[in-house]
Amino acid sequence: MKQSNLFSKTQKFAPKDEVSKNAQLLIRAAFIHKEMAGVYSFLPLGLRVIEKISKIIEEEMNSIGGVKMKSTALQKKETWEKTNRWDDALVDNWFKTQLKNGTDLGLAFTHEEAFTELMKDYIESHRDLPAYPYDIRDMFRNETRSKSGIMRGREFFWKALYSFSKNKEEHNIFYEKAKEAYQKIFQRVGLGDLTYLTFASGGTFSKFSHEFQTLSEAGEDLIYLDEEKKIAVNREVYSDEILEELGLDKNKLIEKKAIETGNIFTLGTKFSEPAQLIYKDKEGKEQLVFMGSYGIGISRLMGTVVEVFADEKGIVWPESIAPFKVHLINIGVEEEAEKLYEELKEKGIEVFWDDRDKRPGEKFADADLMGMPYRVVISPKTLESNSVELKKRSEDSVEMISQEKLFEILK
Amino acid sequence: MKQSNLFSKTQKFAPKDEVSKNAQLLIRAAFIHKEMAGVYSFLPLGLRVIEKISKIIEEEMNSIGGVKMKSTALQKKETWEKTNRWDDALVDNWFKTQLKNGTDLGLAFTHEEAFTELMKDYIESHRDLPAYPYDIRDMFRNETRSKSGIMRGREFFWKALYSFSKNKEEHNIFYEKAKEAYQKIFQRVGLGDLTYLTFASGGTFSKFSHEFQTLSEAGEDLIYLDEEKKIAVNREVYSDEILEELGLDKNKLIEKKAIETGNIFTLGTKFSEPAQLIYKDKEGKEQLVFMGSYGIGISRLMGTVVEVFADEKGIVWPESIAPFKVHLINIGVEEEAEKLYEELKEKGIEVFWDDRDKRPGEKFADADLMGMPYRVVISPKTLESNSVELKKRSEDSVEMISQEKLFEILK
Repeated sequence: MKQSNLFSKTQKFAPKDEVSKNAQLLIRAAFIHKEMAGVYSFLPLGLRVIEKISKIIEEEMNSIGGVKMKSTALQKKETWEKTNRWDDALVDNWFKTQLKNGTDLGLAFTHEEAFTELMKDYIESHRDLPAYPYDIRDMFRNETRSKSGIMRGREFFWKALYSFSKNKEEHNIFYEKAKEAYQKIFQRVGLGDLTYLTFASGGTFSKFSHEFQTLSEAGEDLIYLDEEKKIAVNREVYSDEILEELGLDKNKLIEKKAIETGNIFTLGTKFSEPAQLIYKDKEGKEQLVFMGSYGIGISRLMGTVVEVFADEKGIVWPESIAPFKVHLINIGVEEEAEKLYEELKEKGIEVFWDDRDKRPGEKFADADLMGMPYRVVISPKTLESNSVELKKRSEDSVEMISQEKLFEILK
Repeated sequence: MKQSNLFSKTQKFAPKDEVSKNAQLLIRAAFIHKEMAGVYSFLPLGLRVIEKISKIIEEEMNSIGGVKMKSTALQKKETWEKTNRWDDALVDNWFKTQLKNGTDLGLAFTHEEAFTELMKDYIESHRDLPAYPYDIRDMFRNETRSKSGIMRGREFFWKALYSFSKNKEEHNIFYEKAKEAYQKIFQRVGLGDLTYLTFASGGTFSKFSHEFQTLSEAGEDLIYLDEEKKIAVNREVYSDEILEELGLDKNKLIEKKAIETGNIFTLGTKFSEPAQLIYKDKEGKEQLVFMGSYGIGISRLMGTVVEVFADEKGIVWPESIAPFKVHLINIGVEEEAEKLYEELKEKGIEVFWDDRDKRPGEKFADADLMGMPYRVVISPKTLESNSVELKKRSEDSVEMISQEKLFEILK
């Protein structure tokens, strides 16, 4: 893509009321636009990141049997009354609205109830189980304060999968698979080394839930981690008794701030019972479906990546989710630059060409701010030696190489 | 995909309160799930249709310079007060909600105001124009009644592009391109022959807007069409004077019911003026940006396709937007069916295999109801003659052909 075709532009300043690093950088780099506190549009570059993260998540969910669908934001009061989650005194982050005839509706902040109700139309017998529907969509949470940029949006983008199993045994098999799939997702988006499987509070049907906590000073959670074992314990369940149960040595644990980037939860029959989501087993006996939930905040993940990798010059995207692999900058020599741009595209390399008539300093500063993994400069100077200048965003050193070498490296 | 992996299942009956043909069929065929009147989840097969239509629209929008972004549902009161579209007495299809602190918010039913405000951050000079942002997302309309299935949802899926031009001349060039792109979209989704460019009421900045009206008895609009010229006039502007202006002969026009599947509109400075969306021209003089809007309801388009092509047995999908090209049915012979299934997938042919242990009659009825373009049957009988049975959903005749021939036809 040519930068001149992009309607959005980098900004000198983020709005004054924007205190989070992720939103400040993403606004300045023209990845997002602030509509109000906690509500952001995703500009073309930002949407490309969202789409790349979504694709990785989709692939991993499909690989464990997930089937994608598209649920709704609008929610019926009656559905949520069954589980006692409608009343604002009990659930404090609803956005509520009404039909013209006065019927109360809510905007989904999660989807356990909706998916449970929906599956009542499709689950009758043990032959219909297990089932793993998921969806990727906007959700809404009426946060009282919203100061963490896209890490805690009032309107945000997330993936939720719900598992429907015949019993706890069948559930546990999938739960372990989901754990592995989540670890792959964090690896693939570039957060693997910073993200810890974390024991957190469970519910009636399992002692623990599992969070995926990414180390960051911007995190709202406090975890105690064992670096060797690559597991952690959330402060909410941190006790001598629990540590012993998990075989963790208190003296080896390090206290760290972290961002909850994903969580998986054994729901058991907490939702199937009030909704009466029932199947007939092989003996024809009625049984409650055993459920689990598996969430990842996609916009939160994007914000987390910004928080943990950005440097003083701007954003640093991992290659797997960067909007473009290469930021091509020309200093003069438009014709040669265009030729290189076309050749890169032809070879299937995602390239963003700063074809604007701007000072080199401005182009370099924008490239650093926007954070594509590779910067390629073509100028009269590089052409003299029949080469281009290559720099990785995450490194300081600059290389002069031939175009052939460039194609090899970027392939 | 194997049908046994799909959690959703065909239904004998649609809900009693569902009166529209499109929703009745789509619910029975397990493409959508009704949450409440006008609010539908898209099940895996339905989502595949939505994604295929979206992809076609994206390609056509990109080809005329459109750049995709992701806007928000939550809208600020102040933005809409500027254009006098906040008050429920003036705009009657808002869903409204509030932040915890009592701030009024709305759920977007259209995006002129939001895009205009957003572009204020990116448009300063004539060099920033033209610009063509678009997005594809859920929108919300608080319809008093919602009886047309997914053709008039309270929560629906649509594409909107807004054009920002320096002046009317620049606008007109794009407007004509958009008209052509829309015609390509309707061709590609299979509605080309039934869809007419229709003159409808304009506004201050142009006498007419243009609608794309698809002929259907389920339509809410009445149009007068000239079949030869392939253009039509909406009843709202139908008069002797207008016909003369358009060079249409009253005696050649046919009155037809039609569904408004798309519309393009010259907005002029209607939105840029109240928002003060201004650019500096070459002489440094401040000018208002000249705008246009270009909408297509994606879920409505899907519903329209069902309305116009379905027969007494079920849905008939055009190949371009069918969830799968082929519905493979085996009668016994699982092993041979699996082999054929894998081979079709290997050749890049999208195949949906009814691998369930069901009676042939039930499999055939489901295939007709679901409407994939090709049905392929493999059975002991077809294997005897080393062949498979091929039937197009839109035709009655059945062919016995070799697998090699099958691959050739489906390629």
